[in-house]
Amino acid sequence: MNVTVCGCGRWGTFLAWYTAVQCHHTVTLYGRETSVHFQQLRRTHTNGLVTLPEKMNFSSDLHNAVESAQMVIISIGAQNLRGFLQPLSPEECAGKTLVLCMKGLESDTGLRLTQVVREHLPDADVAVWVGPGHVQDFLQGIPNCMVVDSDTQAVKERVVHAFSSPLIRFYYGEDLLGNEVGAAAKNVIGIAAGMLDGLNKTALKGALMSRGTREVGRLIQAMGGKEISAYGLAHLGDYEATVFSRYSHNRQFGEDFVRGIPYDKLAEGVPTVTALLRLGSQYRVELPICQAVDAVLNGGQDANKVLSGLFLRSLKMEF
Amino acid sequence: MNVTVCGCGRWGTFLAWYTAVQCHHTVTLYGRETSVHFQQLRRTHTNGLVTLPEKMNFSSDLHNAVESAQMVIISIGAQNLRGFLQPLSPEECAGKTLVLCMKGLESDTGLRLTQVVREHLPDADVAVWVGPGHVQDFLQGIPNCMVVDSDTQAVKERVVHAFSSPLIRFYYGEDLLGNEVGAAAKNVIGIAAGMLDGLNKTALKGALMSRGTREVGRLIQAMGGKEISAYGLAHLGDYEATVFSRYSHNRQFGEDFVRGIPYDKLAEGVPTVTALLRLGSQYRVELPICQAVDAVLNGGQDANKVLSGLFLRSLKMEF
Repeated sequence: MNVTVCGCGRWGTFLAWYTAVQCHHTVTLYGRETSVHFQQLRRTHTNGLVTLPEKMNFSSDLHNAVESAQMVIISIGAQNLRGFLQPLSPEECAGKTLVLCMKGLESDTGLRLTQVVREHLPDADVAVWVGPGHVQDFLQGIPNCMVVDSDTQAVKERVVHAFSSPLIRFYYGEDLLGNEVGAAAKNVIGIAAGMLDGLNKTALKGALMSRGTREVGRLIQAMGGKEISAYGLAHLGDYEATVFSRYSHNRQFGEDFVRGIPYDKLAEGVPTVTALLRLGSQYRVELPICQAVDAVLNGGQDANKVLSGLFLRSLKMEF
Repeated sequence: MNVTVCGCGRWGTFLAWYTAVQCHHTVTLYGRETSVHFQQLRRTHTNGLVTLPEKMNFSSDLHNAVESAQMVIISIGAQNLRGFLQPLSPEECAGKTLVLCMKGLESDTGLRLTQVVREHLPDADVAVWVGPGHVQDFLQGIPNCMVVDSDTQAVKERVVHAFSSPLIRFYYGEDLLGNEVGAAAKNVIGIAAGMLDGLNKTALKGALMSRGTREVGRLIQAMGGKEISAYGLAHLGDYEATVFSRYSHNRQFGEDFVRGIPYDKLAEGVPTVTALLRLGSQYRVELPICQAVDAVLNGGQDANKVLSGLFLRSLKMEF
């Protein structure tokens, strides 16, 4: 099958390798002409972590790249999705399956990423591919399980059959809203986890997990999804990779933030927390962990005071 | 208040220190005359980790130790609880509060520990004190939150007020059954986590968390408790300390087991998995993770095959 991967970050580059080498598809990696990552990959076939095969195709022409593929994987920053889609017409996407391999919410609107796609391409087949898994682990041959979800069973099956391998086993999700919100929100929990690490309060990550899942589950339910999705692979199942792993950008961002160390990598949880608070307000759900992260990141409040207050405040009922 | 702590293991010794130094009670540490740990603590006031204050009382006379206290904390191996209680009469325990600081189920019967107490002392005031927290962290001044649960609100309040400090904040549990089963079961998840670490499949701990909580929640619900308790501090909230911490006995036991390294410390999850399978059979709940751990520990099956089969088997629905 012809597959195009859009996005040259750590995960997008991995997906180009994975779909070509593990799933044996004919793969084109699309990047912007001006992208330093894209230029490097096209020239050297490696980003220092992933080495792309010789037969990999490269294209900086979005229309060609989309036209040549049956499946289009998109793995870019969530806030760039709307702009990325803008040049694409419904006609040139007809009959293609768009697979969103990204975790976030649109900060200005609180929209889920499949909603952003639907606004621009109302009839597109869209799926999300989320859940745990770090590039570094996969490249060492350590397998994991992930989730594919979509509005329709046929689209889910198409994606699962195209991209299953011994390295990645898929489960079929059954709550697109819950899996999208859960996948996005885990990055905020990851930032909070990093803050606890940076404050030498790592032991509170247990309480963070217990209360983070509950907060996110309540929001998902209020939005019309299934509360239990917060406890699935897309959210809780991704905590190993996000709350505990040294590879997690969001966890590292939180740790560096409270230590005053500049951190230049994308931490998707930063715009996501703004989106989540927007949704919390819209659906009238209290989100104390999101509020705490926002107060520290955007409100200039003291991290130790805010997070200790969150977990160690007062005696009360657990639920 | 006069408090007696029964048990000279890592956690019992810590509790003697904690209740004396942090809660300012008059504390007696009870141990068996023949216990090497007890002898060492009485002689040196330290186990190399915790140093007990000068004013600590020691007693190897159970009746005296219980008689002198209003609150009796019990922190011993779960399989020893029945034998420990045997010499105590309902009369000498009247008006006292027994606090179980231990996580397990009776292997031969599947009984919860408060049920074992009730069989012998039907009218005793009994509470459990469970949830996350490692001795090493507390001794460094790193605070945590834990759970106290009991049949009655008055007993919960008595325990919470006696033992709260800036180092340990308590939540009131509202599901004694669920918190006891959840606290016990987390040690089995800890063993499975250690096995994954030992097999270099650490990345699957995300899936383990997602599915472990669900399996335990279903069992709790079938037994008449609240499914959500599996997601509270007593179970999921203890995963940081059990699934990820290098201090966890159960995690270390699982890792050493699959690596063929002898491990001599108490791994409470070993008898617990037998008890859980008994309960699963009794209440007709499938417990695939418990079955996998049992197959490896007691059935001589290959850990890699069993655990990979568990998480990476086939394509299916997530819930």
